Amino acid sequence: MFRRIYLDNSATTRVDERVLESMLPFFTEQYGNPSSVHQFGQQAKAAVDKARHEVAALINARPNEIVFTSGGTESNNLAIRGLAENIARMLRRLDTYRNHNQTVENIGLNGIHIIISNIEHSAVYNVSTDLESRGAKLTVIPVNSDGIVSPNDVVNAVNNLPTIVSIMAANNEIGTIQPIKEISRQIVKLRDSGHKIWLHTDAVQAVGKIPVDVEDIGCDLLSLSGHKIYAPKGIGALYIRRGVKLHPQNIGGHQERDRRGGTEAVPNIVGLGTACKIAAAELKHESERIVKLRNRLESAITELIPDVIINGAVDRRLPNISNISFGGIEGEALLINLDMHGIAVSTGSACSSGTIEPSPVIKALGRDDSLARGAIRFSLGRFNTQTDIEFALNYLPDAVRNLRKLTQASAGR
Amino acid sequence: MFRRIYLDNSATTRVDERVLESMLPFFTEQYGNPSSVHQFGQQAKAAVDKARHEVAALINARPNEIVFTSGGTESNNLAIRGLAENIARMLRRLDTYRNHNQTVENIGLNGIHIIISNIEHSAVYNVSTDLESRGAKLTVIPVNSDGIVSPNDVVNAVNNLPTIVSIMAANNEIGTIQPIKEISRQIVKLRDSGHKIWLHTDAVQAVGKIPVDVEDIGCDLLSLSGHKIYAPKGIGALYIRRGVKLHPQNIGGHQERDRRGGTEAVPNIVGLGTACKIAAAELKHESERIVKLRNRLESAITELIPDVIINGAVDRRLPNISNISFGGIEGEALLINLDMHGIAVSTGSACSSGTIEPSPVIKALGRDDSLARGAIRFSLGRFNTQTDIEFALNYLPDAVRNLRKLTQASAGR
Repeated sequence: MFRRIYLDNSATTRVDERVLESMLPFFTEQYGNPSSVHQFGQQAKAAVDKARHEVAALINARPNEIVFTSGGTESNNLAIRGLAENIARMLRRLDTYRNHNQTVENIGLNGIHIIISNIEHSAVYNVSTDLESRGAKLTVIPVNSDGIVSPNDVVNAVNNLPTIVSIMAANNEIGTIQPIKEISRQIVKLRDSGHKIWLHTDAVQAVGKIPVDVEDIGCDLLSLSGHKIYAPKGIGALYIRRGVKLHPQNIGGHQERDRRGGTEAVPNIVGLGTACKIAAAELKHESERIVKLRNRLESAITELIPDVIINGAVDRRLPNISNISFGGIEGEALLINLDMHGIAVSTGSACSSGTIEPSPVIKALGRDDSLARGAIRFSLGRFNTQTDIEFALNYLPDAVRNLRKLTQASAGR
Repeated sequence: MFRRIYLDNSATTRVDERVLESMLPFFTEQYGNPSSVHQFGQQAKAAVDKARHEVAALINARPNEIVFTSGGTESNNLAIRGLAENIARMLRRLDTYRNHNQTVENIGLNGIHIIISNIEHSAVYNVSTDLESRGAKLTVIPVNSDGIVSPNDVVNAVNNLPTIVSIMAANNEIGTIQPIKEISRQIVKLRDSGHKIWLHTDAVQAVGKIPVDVEDIGCDLLSLSGHKIYAPKGIGALYIRRGVKLHPQNIGGHQERDRRGGTEAVPNIVGLGTACKIAAAELKHESERIVKLRNRLESAITELIPDVIINGAVDRRLPNISNISFGGIEGEALLINLDMHGIAVSTGSACSSGTIEPSPVIKALGRDDSLARGAIRFSLGRFNTQTDIEFALNYLPDAVRNLRKLTQASAGR
């Protein structure tokens, strides 16, 4: 049989059989709507409550601080836009109060400041530029050549406006872990001295891979996603610290304590709960196992293949991500070549309309276009074994050598 | 064994085994991210494409007019707010062009008119009032005592502002089918005479129950939901007529042709596709079967129980909904009583903070508080049989009689 090796676990993961097993009764047996008063409804409601406890436990939150969403993107949208719109409404009310004008209208976002890094996921980056087009001020902070945000840069960007800071817990392409706790400490100081300032962190890649504790971090909002931790696609959650108010984005019924309308996606919610429970139990052991596999992969590659660079601070990364630039080749070409041999990896670059744009994240590290174009992300997961790594290593050096020959030959022509 | 009868299919449905069967491979085998270039990704992408064709076929749309969402609520939010924000941006651009001012900022919704009926689902009603709080003008049109919107009332509400009309295809509590085609004809006329006007219809209850054809209706936007048609909770779709532009609400990656960011919920999308395919194949036969069961239920109730009124135009309803007011009792009490005997139904009224509010939909028909409070919705579905109906009828008259006695006794004290 043709062997297929999945080394793209940061793009999405295979659903864990235990997760699927826990979901199955909620499709065809306990299929009630949690808002329904009758037994069918109450069964579903109990299942959602249980999952909420499981998700909360993984990140040391309280269950009522967890809102279920359709995924990481919605969590980020709800966090940043929901907070911005709530601040705007507060300002407007203050304004109309001052002007003895009772109507609340024309909620613009002028007077709100958003601070993000230049390696945020598109679901943070594009939401922020969208709010900028509605009048918000946006500051984008560059990372250093290791892919790390400086807490001082965040503090220095703060002005007198009400401010939303959104810095990811760990990057999706290079895996670098951000000093989110230090950033949080600085923000708390500013808040204590009277600033209106809030911290959101996109922890979609970090949760389940490294310990994430919202009380320890001290953030106000934190996004997580199911399909990065062996739950299905289409489910996520947003941690909302008690007392933090967001203007709802999915507006409808009273679900999720009026913070997110729409019938709860019961099977997916149950799956996310199980996935979080498994992650909490296995995180330590799994991260140790995976980091060994990752180290084997990286040391073999750097040993066997000349002109390679590991992207991002090597000692400050998620255990499962390895992003490597192969000099002189297109990452996209290597990806396709590996795929033909059953090995699934990814590049940060998105091939759009025929031109290959280098990854903005790799560019942000100061890499030249050539090295940025040659970047490949290997992302490991729960179902990868030593055999997978050896299989990939068995083919990879030849693939790179052949592609480089081809590139040199076509350049020589 | 304790028999349980589910007569609350308008709240949510049991997932069809065929739907679940079609989803299963996409959890643990074909688990790729549709945005990934490799084989795992392309498999997932092909499955999403196939489902898009199946959803489009059910409502006679083109596949690229279908955007997958997390459910009916998100579809309604994307339709109404997405359209309003896009209109606002168009107006603003026009404005800045006129004023030679290049910045686009402070997108308020003043100058946009939204017209809805007074029996819309909360996901339309509350989105509309939210937009009103951002400056939009909102007109709420009352229905007649049969629960039907008059097309003339819609036309008469139109003024010179750019206008979004959102009228449901069929009501969720009483099942009345709205004259959406006639409303659409009038809107097309207005548009032809130069009005900026769009029509959205919330067809969450209608799709799969009665024929819904977007070309025949002529609407610009149409919402549908998976969990009302035997697909899971957490998936829906929005039909967006070619050429109609919405400002995206879930902002992130380039998924769904830039109309809805976030990794596609592949298993749920596949399930929705299968559900739509089954609905298309079985709609005619099923609606005939279900309408017979509904008629048996209603004729027996009106025969056996005095002082009952059927709510909503009896000859212009979805085949599966029967909303009946039982004079002199609380619907909530009857619901709980039936539930204790294994029969699941619903009331429109939401019991909040101890007080029982009568359903706004039943109130909109002009019913007095007592009859509105006594309303019960029976909603039938694919898995109901004649035996279910007879089981319910076997108990219902006694339940009503006993509750009435109790009410009279406590009133006499």
